[in-house]
Amino acid sequence: MTEGTKSNKVNMKTLAKVLNVSIATISKALRDSHDIGDETKQRVIETARLLHYVPNPYASSLRKRSSNTIAIVIPEIADSFFSQAINGIESIVDQEKFHALIYLTHDSYEREAQMFNDLTSGRVDGILMSVASNTKDTQHIQNLQKAGVPIVFFDRVCEDIPAAKIKTDDFNSAYIATSHLLNQGCKNIALVTIEGYPSILLAREEGYKKALAEQNIKHEESNIITCSNKYTQENIAVLKDHITKTKPDGIIATVEHLATATYLACEELTLNIPQDIKVVCFTNQITAAILNPPLTTILQPAYEMGRKAAELLFGHLSGRFIQMEKENIILPSKLVVRDSTRISD
Amino acid sequence: MTEGTKSNKVNMKTLAKVLNVSIATISKALRDSHDIGDETKQRVIETARLLHYVPNPYASSLRKRSSNTIAIVIPEIADSFFSQAINGIESIVDQEKFHALIYLTHDSYEREAQMFNDLTSGRVDGILMSVASNTKDTQHIQNLQKAGVPIVFFDRVCEDIPAAKIKTDDFNSAYIATSHLLNQGCKNIALVTIEGYPSILLAREEGYKKALAEQNIKHEESNIITCSNKYTQENIAVLKDHITKTKPDGIIATVEHLATATYLACEELTLNIPQDIKVVCFTNQITAAILNPPLTTILQPAYEMGRKAAELLFGHLSGRFIQMEKENIILPSKLVVRDSTRISD
Repeated sequence: MTEGTKSNKVNMKTLAKVLNVSIATISKALRDSHDIGDETKQRVIETARLLHYVPNPYASSLRKRSSNTIAIVIPEIADSFFSQAINGIESIVDQEKFHALIYLTHDSYEREAQMFNDLTSGRVDGILMSVASNTKDTQHIQNLQKAGVPIVFFDRVCEDIPAAKIKTDDFNSAYIATSHLLNQGCKNIALVTIEGYPSILLAREEGYKKALAEQNIKHEESNIITCSNKYTQENIAVLKDHITKTKPDGIIATVEHLATATYLACEELTLNIPQDIKVVCFTNQITAAILNPPLTTILQPAYEMGRKAAELLFGHLSGRFIQMEKENIILPSKLVVRDSTRISD
Repeated sequence: MTEGTKSNKVNMKTLAKVLNVSIATISKALRDSHDIGDETKQRVIETARLLHYVPNPYASSLRKRSSNTIAIVIPEIADSFFSQAINGIESIVDQEKFHALIYLTHDSYEREAQMFNDLTSGRVDGILMSVASNTKDTQHIQNLQKAGVPIVFFDRVCEDIPAAKIKTDDFNSAYIATSHLLNQGCKNIALVTIEGYPSILLAREEGYKKALAEQNIKHEESNIITCSNKYTQENIAVLKDHITKTKPDGIIATVEHLATATYLACEELTLNIPQDIKVVCFTNQITAAILNPPLTTILQPAYEMGRKAAELLFGHLSGRFIQMEKENIILPSKLVVRDSTRISD
């Protein structure tokens, strides 16, 4: 974006045109040069003030922090990962006396790209984002970077864009979850995932496959169960169908809302958890401990990831982190073992 | 806010000063009046274009819809009521090809007031809000209304502000929940609530008291248990302490996250739900059905409330609802009975 296309942006060229003098005259007048007569000087300064002209060397840095606002662009908020990550982000945003605006993409590239158009207008000083799962073309993100708006990715990152990235170890977490089920005696483990795979789910699938391979268990494609990314009754039907056909003795649910669908599918099939089938879910839900039975989870460092992403962004805005693209931080998730994977007596 | 204080806002007065002519001259030139010479006219029009002057009669209506953005101002998002309400709102926002910005107040008046300052800059065309529980002074909200930004309240409303309001029947819901516990044989029912009571929680308390009074049960102040509005281990300790002292046989948890604290407190006291103590919670959590035991809930019409609030706002923006303050809509919540209030065999 060039100066000329910015709406309402008064620069020296504008002042020169309005006052019908040269840009050099404006420049000299504003620097209080002796080359310019007092009357002209005063007229330039008055007009500059009237039109809210901001001297250029400072303009970019002023503009940079002028909105005192950052954007949090995320796919959804029903998942407790994101509400906890937002709390982490806002712990820093509050310290910095900024506001955070939350934009929901509902996991749609089209919405994400539209929102980024909206953000080019200088509405925010920086962006913390978790990309939509179907975002392949990243031009909208690159355009904003080119316009000088710093971006920090968290959780769902764009690997090919040079920017700071905060992730958790999805591959390793799924490897640990799968190994745990194998150790608890499972021999036929299904992975329940969602359609339109974000990259983190691919990493989880790879971790799952690696754990199986290490114990010489052949991976069957039929053991990957694909659900919709909404909590619906249909997911319960899909799960029941797969469980009936492939008879897994262990399930890894890769998305929070799939825990409820999995439990209800097992209940409807009168399968006892953990006796007939053991379940692990990627979820930060506080209700995990009071489910029937309490659910073994992969707990992600959501708050810490949000906080770290915000720290990097504000570090950059204050000039501390220059080479943001070198910041590639991985915070570990952990397995919290509960009754849903207990070895039956 | 007067025209003069708006930053970067070019009006006829600005043009007159810049061009060193009278406001009348500017006005006539812009109306293509024969009173003004061609050279002056051209200079006025060129300068107006250069400075992005917007003719006044159209200015307000243009400004009204220029951002294509509305704000959703809410206390929190961890509660599934709000994530579902947002989905309802966005179903309409999408249709209208607008964006929604979400502002979280974290239930703090100070944050809310600061955010409203931010919103006066014409950033949004309208606001959907659920007020912070400690908002007593509503000047920030009234200021925005005076500036012409329409506001629709949902769930947590400011009764004294003339604006459209979408509520659910909190009084009646608590009355129904309490009556249900009484019908299931409870005689000593505790109400678990949070500190810094929002008005909806007061209504719930009143509904609870009315149900008790109707069955000639004396309400004891010691049966109101006040927790923190965060999910913390301390809440579990507070609940254990009260349950040990007052020995309730029924509990109504008025806030979603209190369900987990209540279940864990009962577990630590080795009290069986529903045999020793029955539990109802105000929650829209999908995990309610898979808890141990499945939880009887007051289910709020969150999606519908959000959708209705957005419909009213866009109706107003398009000129259909003129007297917004007459829109006072109450959508009913419903009791969903599950095992946590079952009569033991």
